[in-house]
Amino acid sequence: MSTTERVVVIGADAAGMSAAHQALRSARTIGRDIHVVVLEKTQDTSYSACGIPYLLAGLVPSTDELSARTPDKHRAMGVDLRLGVTATALDMSTRTVATTTVDGHVDHVQFDKLVLATGADAVVPKWARDSNGRLVTGVHTVKNLDDARTWLDLLAHPVPGAPDRPRCAVVVGGGYIGVEMAEAFVARGFQTTLITRSAVMSTLDPHMSERVSAALAAAGITVVTDTTVVELATEHGRIRSATTAAADTYPADLLALGIGLRPTSALGAAAGLAIGQHGGYLPDEQQLIGEGVWAAGDCCEVLDRMRGKSVFSPLGTHANKQGRICGYNIAGEHRTFAGTLGTAITRFSHGHTHLEIARTGLSTSEALAVGFDAESLITEGGTASGYMAERTPIATNVIADRRTRRLLGVQIVGGAQAGKRIDTAAAALWGEMAIDDLASMDLSYAPPFATVWEALQLAARRLADRL
Amino acid sequence: MSTTERVVVIGADAAGMSAAHQALRSARTIGRDIHVVVLEKTQDTSYSACGIPYLLAGLVPSTDELSARTPDKHRAMGVDLRLGVTATALDMSTRTVATTTVDGHVDHVQFDKLVLATGADAVVPKWARDSNGRLVTGVHTVKNLDDARTWLDLLAHPVPGAPDRPRCAVVVGGGYIGVEMAEAFVARGFQTTLITRSAVMSTLDPHMSERVSAALAAAGITVVTDTTVVELATEHGRIRSATTAAADTYPADLLALGIGLRPTSALGAAAGLAIGQHGGYLPDEQQLIGEGVWAAGDCCEVLDRMRGKSVFSPLGTHANKQGRICGYNIAGEHRTFAGTLGTAITRFSHGHTHLEIARTGLSTSEALAVGFDAESLITEGGTASGYMAERTPIATNVIADRRTRRLLGVQIVGGAQAGKRIDTAAAALWGEMAIDDLASMDLSYAPPFATVWEALQLAARRLADRL
Repeated sequence: MSTTERVVVIGADAAGMSAAHQALRSARTIGRDIHVVVLEKTQDTSYSACGIPYLLAGLVPSTDELSARTPDKHRAMGVDLRLGVTATALDMSTRTVATTTVDGHVDHVQFDKLVLATGADAVVPKWARDSNGRLVTGVHTVKNLDDARTWLDLLAHPVPGAPDRPRCAVVVGGGYIGVEMAEAFVARGFQTTLITRSAVMSTLDPHMSERVSAALAAAGITVVTDTTVVELATEHGRIRSATTAAADTYPADLLALGIGLRPTSALGAAAGLAIGQHGGYLPDEQQLIGEGVWAAGDCCEVLDRMRGKSVFSPLGTHANKQGRICGYNIAGEHRTFAGTLGTAITRFSHGHTHLEIARTGLSTSEALAVGFDAESLITEGGTASGYMAERTPIATNVIADRRTRRLLGVQIVGGAQAGKRIDTAAAALWGEMAIDDLASMDLSYAPPFATVWEALQLAARRLADRL
Repeated sequence: MSTTERVVVIGADAAGMSAAHQALRSARTIGRDIHVVVLEKTQDTSYSACGIPYLLAGLVPSTDELSARTPDKHRAMGVDLRLGVTATALDMSTRTVATTTVDGHVDHVQFDKLVLATGADAVVPKWARDSNGRLVTGVHTVKNLDDARTWLDLLAHPVPGAPDRPRCAVVVGGGYIGVEMAEAFVARGFQTTLITRSAVMSTLDPHMSERVSAALAAAGITVVTDTTVVELATEHGRIRSATTAAADTYPADLLALGIGLRPTSALGAAAGLAIGQHGGYLPDEQQLIGEGVWAAGDCCEVLDRMRGKSVFSPLGTHANKQGRICGYNIAGEHRTFAGTLGTAITRFSHGHTHLEIARTGLSTSEALAVGFDAESLITEGGTASGYMAERTPIATNVIADRRTRRLLGVQIVGGAQAGKRIDTAAAALWGEMAIDDLASMDLSYAPPFATVWEALQLAARRLADRL
């Protein structure tokens, strides 16, 4: 007689819900009986964190739009979803999760199989907190839908006591969230300053990063690089300005923190599960981290195929893929996660400026650090034939290994239609192709879409000729 | 003592000029002395045939814009360019080309090395000609800049004798040129009929092709499939209507022929060079077709990597690449052309309709014909997150082999930002990857650019789950 297997998933965002649904789907397919419980500390499920800056910019009508599926929809699909339930401890010997609810109700949930999908937390520096350890009013992270609601509230209400200057915002961090929040603030009419400890989009090679800085500056954003915020000035508990290590002070009614994430892995760490050097779980290729225990999403480190070692790369795409892998494997279908390449894309769009920014693989410095004999070259091109109105400029930075001619990375900064070309390079990296493959493969051309030598291929060819 | 090597190139478009310039560049690099003569029967060099429909639609200011480089520019770069010179015969034993000019001047040009880059001719059916063998007035092909000039002239002058109905155009052929000319005619305000012997975009699987037909019809174009024009009615030597084999008659002030091209290979054929079953030269991977004789571009057949045999695929991208390969090899650098995948893209854009159409690899019927155990699936998706204004629909048809799980082909029909995604699939095909690779590779995501499961990957995953 078969007994119902009990699967507990902790975390109801991309990774957790992908695991839950795939486990149910796969179990149904093979006629196995499973019960899937999902524990979620907030009231939100399956939301798009990546959409928050566009919500705040006013481009998305409401927070609800960012949810792919409502709790009721998940339940209708067979998931035993429990919201407002925080997992506080994990006991691997008794196979139980201790939980607590907002109103203090403590419980224990038994599991046969467990999925840890607890995500990541935004890093909050000490200077962002008041003496009670709370975030200074007007200062906030950009991570989950509760953050989004806080931001919408802050944006909707003017600063009390009518400020004596235009509304000002500071963004701390020059990565994806930083650039996207800068777009949101300028869209809202804020005088905006972006402060970053290194460069804007520092995962690009410096000459590519500089193009992004220049576009932000051209759109009126004050870009402050190579320094950090060290102190805030407040008034009635509310932020008024931010001062950097360089002793410059920038007015700020609002300050967005975009300085990074850390895997939320304390639960498993306390239960003795292995934690990697970046602070995340270390799943094998089936996403297993213990007997009958899987992990997926931002709480994990992932295999970087270019480096051949694990990195922390918190992205919804990986979370969705890994969650599904967990689901398949829970139901007994053997599936593996094949790793990542470091592919990412964003844009900065304001007024006449529309910049698309994308990367895949290793930057030049990353490639050198790994031990590749890396050479790179930036080539200017166009996204369409010179005589077409669709044409926008595209700068393509290609990185390859001198010894083996292996393609190592590609970075793109350009106008409309430039960014998504990165996927072609990612596919080439996935296949461990040579720079010559990228230069000679049969890519599409028609005047509204490309130049007859596709920009990516022109760039690859020029570097290939130098190796 | 080194003597100057004399290279003769016949044809001054993409393939020929790429060969000429690369030969000069490579020779210069290695310190070799060569003289490059290019013979061109027209007065045009290095033009974009693909841009002609956009010129005729009024989207490109002038014919000059379609020329990448003027004759003077080519000469300044060291090419001995001779315009208005037709090669009439080739003697391989004496290594001479017989030539004639427009004014009847006959000459012989000696060569040490020769490049045949004579392109292709548009197919003209018998019914398109009058009793003297000339094209009926108002009927024309869409191949070179002289064609473009004829069309601009036809479009600029109303039909003599003021027609008793709105201006009408017929496009014969449902391929890339057909669809692009249909866009040009509706842009010009013509009541437009497209007649094709099979389906619109018949190189797509039928359910994808139907989407293109539907979009054309929605834009007001009369789409007539599965029949051919058999007869024209004329008035004072000028077209008035076209009648099909189905005995239907369509009014026509203008008729564009887009029913295909044939390799222009008579010169070499008469000199004893081998000709393939599609009528083109059969270059080896160095583009050689004889001792010291190369061929490149539309006059050649090319290796289709998916079929492992030669096909006729007249595209500027191949012509440019092959021309360069010739140039390298002429100068003694060993380079090879790695073949094609059948990648192509176009669009149909009019009013609120903007359809991007792309393909790579084999269609289902092509794959079955080659002997693959092909299965295909069309998946509906979006080009951006559902909550972003950028989102347009994208239908992705993925074809894979059941036995080996090898990816065989991808077709895309969608809105803005859909088409160029085909390159990612082309890169996967280039690497002979499995459907599972396409489903699991690390592609870029951000809300304005993709769904968290990229449309291509969602499509690949769904097919992978069925194999």
